[in-house]
Amino acid sequence: MSEVIGAVEEAYKAFNADQVVQPDYIGIDLHPPRGDIDFKLGYYKGNEIISMKASSGGFPNNPVTYGVPSGMGTILLFDAQTCALICVMDGSLITGLRTGASGAVSVKALARKNAKKITSIGTGNQARMQIRAINEIMRVEVIHAWDHTPESLAKFKADIEREFGIPVVTAHSKQDAVEQADILITTTRGKGSVVEADWIKPGTHIVAIGTDAKGKQELDPEVFRNAKVVVDSILQCTEKGETQHPLGRNIIAKDGIHAEIGEVLLGTKPGRESDDEITIFDSTGMAIQDNTTSTRIYRNAIERNVGTFFEFIQ
Amino acid sequence: MSEVIGAVEEAYKAFNADQVVQPDYIGIDLHPPRGDIDFKLGYYKGNEIISMKASSGGFPNNPVTYGVPSGMGTILLFDAQTCALICVMDGSLITGLRTGASGAVSVKALARKNAKKITSIGTGNQARMQIRAINEIMRVEVIHAWDHTPESLAKFKADIEREFGIPVVTAHSKQDAVEQADILITTTRGKGSVVEADWIKPGTHIVAIGTDAKGKQELDPEVFRNAKVVVDSILQCTEKGETQHPLGRNIIAKDGIHAEIGEVLLGTKPGRESDDEITIFDSTGMAIQDNTTSTRIYRNAIERNVGTFFEFIQ
Repeated sequence: MSEVIGAVEEAYKAFNADQVVQPDYIGIDLHPPRGDIDFKLGYYKGNEIISMKASSGGFPNNPVTYGVPSGMGTILLFDAQTCALICVMDGSLITGLRTGASGAVSVKALARKNAKKITSIGTGNQARMQIRAINEIMRVEVIHAWDHTPESLAKFKADIEREFGIPVVTAHSKQDAVEQADILITTTRGKGSVVEADWIKPGTHIVAIGTDAKGKQELDPEVFRNAKVVVDSILQCTEKGETQHPLGRNIIAKDGIHAEIGEVLLGTKPGRESDDEITIFDSTGMAIQDNTTSTRIYRNAIERNVGTFFEFIQ
Repeated sequence: MSEVIGAVEEAYKAFNADQVVQPDYIGIDLHPPRGDIDFKLGYYKGNEIISMKASSGGFPNNPVTYGVPSGMGTILLFDAQTCALICVMDGSLITGLRTGASGAVSVKALARKNAKKITSIGTGNQARMQIRAINEIMRVEVIHAWDHTPESLAKFKADIEREFGIPVVTAHSKQDAVEQADILITTTRGKGSVVEADWIKPGTHIVAIGTDAKGKQELDPEVFRNAKVVVDSILQCTEKGETQHPLGRNIIAKDGIHAEIGEVLLGTKPGRESDDEITIFDSTGMAIQDNTTSTRIYRNAIERNVGTFFEFIQ
């Protein structure tokens, strides 16, 4: 995970240093109860690698009827010198890892230095990934967690306490949990109730992960009114990130977005400037994160002679 | 090849029977002397397979400097029921095969039944693929061939005569070759001189293969004025096929395109209606051809237990 955090930092900086080409993605929507599959392409001039990730999601019948996950991913890497295919790897775990790492990168750049308490709204896989990543870069004193499913909440508490030794307080309400936060992480599916603006205390850093499509929402758009808003990609976040909602209601204007996170990491825009600011990091996920993360995994695999070699061209 | 011809016929019919989803392709243009790589996606409801082909081309330094071809291809197949990845295969040979087959499919649908003489303008790999495919579906009496490189022309003659036993006449001029044609096939890179309209005799069927991008051209646009024009895809051919040129010069209008070839194969539009017609088949190549062809290869491989099995998800 510490390497993934480095890879994601590199990705964000590269994106804002004009080192990245990320065309629009293409996809196929299948007939319900099936979901969709999309293909995201990223070229990074820094490593001369082109990555293509195929990601599917929304196939609820997969586990029981077909014995495969409800969403899957595959990553291809091409050497940009020749466009030869150099690697085929699974993309599901990598998506989880690089998304977890994105929260940690934003915490380094935007959270208060004395932040100790995390609130996790959502207790699924990605909530765990966020904790795993943030735990690499700071000492977490306590996690307040909330989920609308009590079983999921109890399992999250048990798992996190066992894996990381961080005490987890299972909150009685979403409001109770949010009010405790130095760092608030939202990783729900973006289809339930929202976090209300007046629950959030000054100085909170918000990591908004769950909203990655039009119509999804995790935060009351009023949260954005007096917050410092940082996004991974303005293009993506204004369309399908949490930022779509305050923009749509004219709570903020597009030029009210403070920065893309790569600008903060490169030092061309300031990060947090006071202990009272509310900062929001809106993450939709970029192809270049898949590129830098999978390239690092590929290089580690080559170095350690892990994987299977295959000749397509005889 | 006979199976590929069947697969391409199936593809064309499916396309015009509303069984196909083919999103716009995405790609990356690299800095010269490198070329580009693009990703084409096709979903066929008939076989419930989603195909994705990555194709690169235009890397002249690849063979000498890196020991790999100047263009390469990779195809992924996904089971559309679950979106699980089911196959990764090379895509270069398949592209050649399905493009060769497209010419043969058009010959069956549009050439005179008594056609015997083929003229091949261009003598590269794709010219050979065209002969290989057409030789499956009719008796070829003689091939008149022309190329601006005499060595390439001589090698074509030797190879075709040895492989297929069809006599090849190496023409003294492009005009000499074209004037002999019952079936005229153009497979140049579309950057040289064009085939002039008054060289083409009544009754000729033209297979226009080489033009697959804006600016490429193999035929005098006047050829289209009194010809029956059939394309693989109106959307693609009006933009990047041979048909772009007569449209651009108002020699024909868009509604002057007689049919997409799938309509002819399905019987919803007539094919050739007299022995005097000049017919043109403008082929730009569609993702659905890769889909049906690679799916057939995949199924043959499974049946014959050919290939390597791999578990990405443990």
